[in-house]
Amino acid sequence: MREARLSHNENPFGFPKDILMKVAREIEGDYVARYTKAPTHELKESLVRYVKETSRADFINEDWITVTPGADGGISLLMMLRPQRVVIFPPTYYFYYTLSKAHELNVHDPPLIGDLRVPNVELKEGDMVFLPNPNNPTGHHFSFDEIERLLSSPATVVIDEAYFEFSWVTSVNLLRDFSNLVVIRTFSKAFAFAGQRFGYIIANPEMIRKVNSKRNPYNIPSLVMKLAQEILRRRDVFLGKIKEIEMERKKLEEELKAMGLKPFPSQTNFLYFKVGNADEIKNELEKRHVFVRVLWGGIRVSVGKREENEMFLQALKEVLKI
Amino acid sequence: MREARLSHNENPFGFPKDILMKVAREIEGDYVARYTKAPTHELKESLVRYVKETSRADFINEDWITVTPGADGGISLLMMLRPQRVVIFPPTYYFYYTLSKAHELNVHDPPLIGDLRVPNVELKEGDMVFLPNPNNPTGHHFSFDEIERLLSSPATVVIDEAYFEFSWVTSVNLLRDFSNLVVIRTFSKAFAFAGQRFGYIIANPEMIRKVNSKRNPYNIPSLVMKLAQEILRRRDVFLGKIKEIEMERKKLEEELKAMGLKPFPSQTNFLYFKVGNADEIKNELEKRHVFVRVLWGGIRVSVGKREENEMFLQALKEVLKI
Repeated sequence: MREARLSHNENPFGFPKDILMKVAREIEGDYVARYTKAPTHELKESLVRYVKETSRADFINEDWITVTPGADGGISLLMMLRPQRVVIFPPTYYFYYTLSKAHELNVHDPPLIGDLRVPNVELKEGDMVFLPNPNNPTGHHFSFDEIERLLSSPATVVIDEAYFEFSWVTSVNLLRDFSNLVVIRTFSKAFAFAGQRFGYIIANPEMIRKVNSKRNPYNIPSLVMKLAQEILRRRDVFLGKIKEIEMERKKLEEELKAMGLKPFPSQTNFLYFKVGNADEIKNELEKRHVFVRVLWGGIRVSVGKREENEMFLQALKEVLKI
Repeated sequence: MREARLSHNENPFGFPKDILMKVAREIEGDYVARYTKAPTHELKESLVRYVKETSRADFINEDWITVTPGADGGISLLMMLRPQRVVIFPPTYYFYYTLSKAHELNVHDPPLIGDLRVPNVELKEGDMVFLPNPNNPTGHHFSFDEIERLLSSPATVVIDEAYFEFSWVTSVNLLRDFSNLVVIRTFSKAFAFAGQRFGYIIANPEMIRKVNSKRNPYNIPSLVMKLAQEILRRRDVFLGKIKEIEMERKKLEEELKAMGLKPFPSQTNFLYFKVGNADEIKNELEKRHVFVRVLWGGIRVSVGKREENEMFLQALKEVLKI
């Protein structure tokens, strides 16, 4: 083990080579060379089936879904609707700040309160709330009460379910009752597909039409679409690995606690804990070829393979002189 | 031949399957699963080499280039700089209108004048001009005089060289003298890669920094980057096919002229001609499984393989009762 890349919450098991080769063999040269409207009918159908199988949202059909270049691409498209304010609750996904800046949007960011709960904030027409659930970097869930409170405002509420497959808790069921709800998802985490940029948005048909009006109809490479479809067909392969990641997370959590640290309870493939001098610790870990993120003064570490987690723990013990 | 898809100026020869398989075999599962910053160093290096080999712009280095999801993705990123006006000269690439609308930008669009020349227009700071060269849908070149006249204004001038490999005429050399020049390119046409969304922007380092500030640093799938690099390495394969397309274009041009039509002289992989009732003709062609575009009251037809072009000509003769 030369290094442990635990900074981006990627899937440590890699993408199954046999799936890649199968798709490459099946694809014709003409398919690569020609524009393909995204999503293909087959892909949309597969996504709808997957969403329905993992929720109680029987009302979802193909009009309720569109595809995006990663969840980040989805956030970007939603920001192209030019909300008057982007409303976020730090500690939250840092990229909301980056993308708001790129789109030159105003950000309103009252922090989470108490036990990391959504603060009371007056939301207006023209506001767009982004809430990761489970939250990033803390890894905890927000309650349906908190989410419904946001939805009962005139704001558009985007629930970012990037880590859905690690928690299986979804707001998709709420789409029937709340037309201001948008759910975004990605294949980057559970499906070992971060480098290929594939995500999707679930929302009511009117919102999907609005998002599509901001989207290049060819915005997803046709190769990526074929791979995404094969991922869904073979999803048991990936879901098996998720169980392994969850077991590793539990071990890692115990070991951090044994070191006297206090990782937040996580429903994701990462852990987050506060330390006094996070930046210094991160740099010291890097000298030992272990890569983590510092976010809001805490350290976020992805759950890797066993040997990567061991490497991280060993390095952390050295750095903290435990 | 069941149908002739001559509507999107794609490469009719398809993408070489051996290149696809080579890249698929070489790629590791971990590379698919992890985020990869775009462009990779190797890809940037290959692009710089290609640009230098095909221009006299020795001053170009890696700071002068960035990558985009197709040329359309490049246009979108440039529009995120939020110019006060988008200035275009119809007949031009229709997608400038679509994207301006998506980005909620003002469009100023005085038409080409006389012999399809750029009109005299007062350009201001905050204007962003988009000029395809060769032009789409007419296929003709603008002169360096016309381009330098635009560049001598305070506007940002984007020269869209989507069809560069069919003409080998470039404005890249002008980048040294004009800091308001941006050149965009794509792999969609000559490199049979339309479905995979890969393009690049060449501009001075300050402009590249501005564009990068609007760009997700992972905006290109890592598989697409590997393929793009292999395309550049094997570019003789593609450039050989371009000769074939040019020969076919000349034949097609002659045959249209023999039918009494007046195709514009083209430096691209398409031809454009005016007809009285273009929409009706297009519909009639579609009934015969031949697909073309109607743009500004004329018909634009991509140069396909010999049998596709024959199918188009045969159908057109039927429809025009020639």
